[in-house]
Amino acid sequence: MSEFPKTPRTSITRLPKRGAYDKETIYAILDEALYCTLAYSNEGQPFQIPTGFCRMGDKLYIHGSVGSFYLREISEKKLPVSIGVTLIDGIVLARSAFHHSVNYRSVVLFGKGEVVSDEDELYRALEVFTNKMCPGRWDDIRKPNKKEWKATLVLSFDLEEASAKIRTGGPKDDEEDYDLDIWAGVLPLKQEKQSLIPDPALKEGVEVPDYLK
Amino acid sequence: MSEFPKTPRTSITRLPKRGAYDKETIYAILDEALYCTLAYSNEGQPFQIPTGFCRMGDKLYIHGSVGSFYLREISEKKLPVSIGVTLIDGIVLARSAFHHSVNYRSVVLFGKGEVVSDEDELYRALEVFTNKMCPGRWDDIRKPNKKEWKATLVLSFDLEEASAKIRTGGPKDDEEDYDLDIWAGVLPLKQEKQSLIPDPALKEGVEVPDYLK
Repeated sequence: MSEFPKTPRTSITRLPKRGAYDKETIYAILDEALYCTLAYSNEGQPFQIPTGFCRMGDKLYIHGSVGSFYLREISEKKLPVSIGVTLIDGIVLARSAFHHSVNYRSVVLFGKGEVVSDEDELYRALEVFTNKMCPGRWDDIRKPNKKEWKATLVLSFDLEEASAKIRTGGPKDDEEDYDLDIWAGVLPLKQEKQSLIPDPALKEGVEVPDYLK
Repeated sequence: MSEFPKTPRTSITRLPKRGAYDKETIYAILDEALYCTLAYSNEGQPFQIPTGFCRMGDKLYIHGSVGSFYLREISEKKLPVSIGVTLIDGIVLARSAFHHSVNYRSVVLFGKGEVVSDEDELYRALEVFTNKMCPGRWDDIRKPNKKEWKATLVLSFDLEEASAKIRTGGPKDDEEDYDLDIWAGVLPLKQEKQSLIPDPALKEGVEVPDYLK
């Protein structure tokens, strides 16, 4: 399967031409996003949590403390969740207020979390997660010890029901507005790395590793 | 009131020292964020939508098409919603995998949307929203006409129940790990403006306005 089925929950009804359902597009957005928003509801009250995540194959993984209230809620009660990510690529500056917009790439998916108990899967999920946040980091650091593994809860979500919504390109104005003396275009935005801040307690002689340069 | 009350829904239970409840902190995060995630549930199924927003005083405003399914759902059914924003400030690189973290500023609030029908409030909300995305833009552009106002739905949410969660600073490692030969510190991240992309259909002679330089 290279395309997700359009379900009533994932079909883009508003501006459907912005919708995408193919895995390649959806997985690329998921893999670029540094965090997701996990939404669930309990007795009609919606909640949401921003949290880090990673993808391996057709599963999405989140992790946290075994003491996390929301992780226990959604895993013990098998609550249905919605997981979303949004990347903002630019502000679209039209000639009219009405046609101002934003360039973005977003994904929403639906599923239920399963507690991951397989040790190999757990280990790989943490490795992929760490290297997603900082490529190359995993091989360099102290791996979790028994006590830390015991304190960590990892949930997996099958990627079965997902869609993306994407806007790209410049402003689309009303025909009669193109003659106005108003600047129009796109102000692109990008999340960029800044200069590294070394830990003041850094051991003497430890250099910045190549993967961080 | 300069502080929001801690309610069962807004109290930070996991790492409570990261919690903040004062308006100044919460409003600064809301005012910096370019979009929010609005979560609601319908018959136990959670949904979430990323959307632009602005704040005026003690109210948060979102807008969209009168044809928007979710805006109609939450306004007609008076569904309780959760609105969240998250700003990622950096990746915290500890010596141990376990103590890796992220510097972030997030806000979650709870409320119900009210349809804004007062024309002055509508107008100001769109002005504040536009100038939030691009300071100075509103005075420069063609304002909405009657047809456009009719196609626009604006909802307001009273800011009554909100909290922030914030992490700043460097890694905190276990005592015995400080002697390891592993680089540790923070990789700061920042959403930055890139070079403007003029609309290919830009009218000849229209210059980039000062507020965009």
